[in-house]
Amino acid sequence: MPPRTPLDADAVLAATEDILRRHGPDKATVVDVARALGVSHAAVYKHFASKQALREAVTRRWLDRNRDTLAGIAADRAVPPAQRLRSWLHAVLTVKQAKIREDPELFAAYGILAAAHSSVATGHVADLLGQLTAIIADGAADGTFRTDDAAATARVVFTATARFHHVAHAAEWQNPGIEDELDEVCSLLLEGLQNN
Amino acid sequence: MPPRTPLDADAVLAATEDILRRHGPDKATVVDVARALGVSHAAVYKHFASKQALREAVTRRWLDRNRDTLAGIAADRAVPPAQRLRSWLHAVLTVKQAKIREDPELFAAYGILAAAHSSVATGHVADLLGQLTAIIADGAADGTFRTDDAAATARVVFTATARFHHVAHAAEWQNPGIEDELDEVCSLLLEGLQNN
Repeated sequence: MPPRTPLDADAVLAATEDILRRHGPDKATVVDVARALGVSHAAVYKHFASKQALREAVTRRWLDRNRDTLAGIAADRAVPPAQRLRSWLHAVLTVKQAKIREDPELFAAYGILAAAHSSVATGHVADLLGQLTAIIADGAADGTFRTDDAAATARVVFTATARFHHVAHAAEWQNPGIEDELDEVCSLLLEGLQNN
Repeated sequence: MPPRTPLDADAVLAATEDILRRHGPDKATVVDVARALGVSHAAVYKHFASKQALREAVTRRWLDRNRDTLAGIAADRAVPPAQRLRSWLHAVLTVKQAKIREDPELFAAYGILAAAHSSVATGHVADLLGQLTAIIADGAADGTFRTDDAAATARVVFTATARFHHVAHAAEWQNPGIEDELDEVCSLLLEGLQNN
């Protein structure tokens, strides 16, 4: 049991992530988290009002760990918008493949939140859509893409690539050839988006 | 209990469909089917080697009930290929919306088979892909679409419209505006497919 030090929210989140990883989302409890920290479960509840709030905070933190990587690709104006769109969609798939492979239990926790339309899932999707909108807006500005509503076009592209990022398709992400499939969908979408 | 008459496979399928509808896929048993028919469960097994085989045959029959409607739309050369592609994709969504709304228990039985990669699901997808390939081949032949491999292009279009036909998205098919979303995806895909 670790020594008792003033408990902060970060320590609770780190311990919860570890417990989720070891026990899975169905079995992990706040009591397990408190025990790992050497505190009462009341001490945990002081930081997070409910098991649900704690689970959401942990999953959000876990998802956000790759946010800067993806945001960086989306914002890299050294890469032409068409190529950037393709790279970003591949990077989203790569990040999600790694998450499910390396952290199946935390991915399962995310899946439960997504199915319940938790703000963690809607926030994650809004994040990704914002990045995609920025790429498409850059392409509209430099004349690559034909659109007068980058956000609407981003939603269409996001819908048409659901197989490669929507949690309902997670079982398909390890299929051999999934990257080639994404590449073919990208090519068709880019044909449709680009000015001729 | 109905009178005993020589039992044929069709009668077994009809009774099983009815039992599935009343009890749901988790609770329906071969004994229920036999009781409804007034026969022994051995008599049912004479037609279908296992509960799984029976469930697959019932679900295939239930899915195939709309096959001709969709095949008819795909094959209707009076409608130009671009418009036909859009109409067909909308018709697939409409058929699936109706199936889940009118027959949630049979839809659930299909979902179980799809998750297990049953031949019922792969056969259904192959059917739809064949219809889509025919539309795209017609478009390639008359110069509407730019492709030298209609089957490959059909797979790309099918993947890009997964949200509107893949069983993993069934919960989203009753969303208001889902038809408009499909229409927007169709428009972008058609922009990409069509010769300018």
